[in-house]
Amino acid sequence: MIDLDTLRHVDTTDARAARERYRAGAVEPTSGVAPGFTQANMIVLPRDWAFDFLLYAQRNPKACPVLDVSDPGSHATVLAKGADLRRDVPLYRIWRDGVLAEEVTDATAAWAEHPDLVSFLIGCSFTFETPMMEAGIDIRHITDKSNVPMYLTNRACRPAGRLHGNLVVSMRPIPASRVADAATISGRFPAVHGAPVHVGAPEELGIADLGKPEFGDAVRIEAGEVPVFWACGVTPQAAVMASKVPFAITHAPGHMFITDIPDSAYHA
Amino acid sequence: MIDLDTLRHVDTTDARAARERYRAGAVEPTSGVAPGFTQANMIVLPRDWAFDFLLYAQRNPKACPVLDVSDPGSHATVLAKGADLRRDVPLYRIWRDGVLAEEVTDATAAWAEHPDLVSFLIGCSFTFETPMMEAGIDIRHITDKSNVPMYLTNRACRPAGRLHGNLVVSMRPIPASRVADAATISGRFPAVHGAPVHVGAPEELGIADLGKPEFGDAVRIEAGEVPVFWACGVTPQAAVMASKVPFAITHAPGHMFITDIPDSAYHA
Repeated sequence: MIDLDTLRHVDTTDARAARERYRAGAVEPTSGVAPGFTQANMIVLPRDWAFDFLLYAQRNPKACPVLDVSDPGSHATVLAKGADLRRDVPLYRIWRDGVLAEEVTDATAAWAEHPDLVSFLIGCSFTFETPMMEAGIDIRHITDKSNVPMYLTNRACRPAGRLHGNLVVSMRPIPASRVADAATISGRFPAVHGAPVHVGAPEELGIADLGKPEFGDAVRIEAGEVPVFWACGVTPQAAVMASKVPFAITHAPGHMFITDIPDSAYHA
Repeated sequence: MIDLDTLRHVDTTDARAARERYRAGAVEPTSGVAPGFTQANMIVLPRDWAFDFLLYAQRNPKACPVLDVSDPGSHATVLAKGADLRRDVPLYRIWRDGVLAEEVTDATAAWAEHPDLVSFLIGCSFTFETPMMEAGIDIRHITDKSNVPMYLTNRACRPAGRLHGNLVVSMRPIPASRVADAATISGRFPAVHGAPVHVGAPEELGIADLGKPEFGDAVRIEAGEVPVFWACGVTPQAAVMASKVPFAITHAPGHMFITDIPDSAYHA
């Protein structure tokens, strides 16, 4: 597993600057921010739920590739020096009994409700957007400065203990001539969702209207472009809802935790 | 994650036949048995220890690549149809308070002591021995019909909860001219330990005498051959000992669980 020991010589100024801005209260979707640094989904659960969740992630690795797990009660991570997981994500969601209770920019108060919270940081498809753009593939939600569209599918994840739920996917419109390239490039990053789970045919995933994503923003789809779907790290939030988990803290979709780890470290 | 649903059309006769022989009482090291089918290390722990272990595996993925985790109380696995994890391994070890209490060919009685055991199946380097042999690299312990030599190193694994311990490695002597090939071929199988962790210089790993492995058998090393070390799925047994785990069932080193999954399924 990657940690900071292997990355002593990386200049992490941009990643640290972004975390500091979010700690100070800035709110924005993080796609395109601190390019080249890996961003992570986050879910924080009481210790009693930690095994179920780690097993859920292990059984659904394309949706939930685990990058780090904190020790119970800790709000530090080996993926970012000096980070405070309670404050360094731009926008948090607090969940109670599977229902979104509130969105906050600082989760310190909610975090104090439980002494034994375990934080899971999960790979994010933003990691392979930089190499896709370098290959000349337009990433629509970055070009249009919006959040990536995410959809709740009809595909059940493999359950684990008390946790069950359906797969969430992110979507990027890709020109038909570049779909194979997009699959190949993202496939080189298995730790951050890897290759697409589905290309075209959104109705097969139970998506009736690409214009109405469950999370994030709808994006332009031009003539000759195909919707390409990747497993998404919002899948744990769907499990929190479906399984009525008593208490959880997550990032808000698209508002990720920015690590000190270069994207290239996750290249297979 | 790979499971039987994806492998409906594979002829699993050889794998099933091996498991049936072991269920009937046969005892042998499994290297070279049912070639082409993935073999797995096993560790079985009470539910109370399951999170610590799954986290230990997640933090030490080269040594502990998890292939499947059973539900608490179950002795089935998605990796082998009709298998009984209590009986289908050729030789088991029963551990009490971190000490090897006994070796048995049938773990049914020990299994019955705890109602909530969780079984972890962990990748085994035997998986990449077949492609290495196909590339013309001699696998010494197969040629000489012995067990692979395994050594307890001086390298601490990253701890998790109550679990800590040092890395165990397997060793294969490789001609100097084929070391790069061996690294490349095994590196294509990241789910089953992947590329070597160390090449040559056993003293750097704290191995004083290659002729005295902690587990398995010593093997011939010919002139011009270099000892090559891979992370080994016996590492959990070292953690059981070091951490004085109250109760555990494992396979005996080299006596693996044979799955229905073709080795090629774990090719990256």
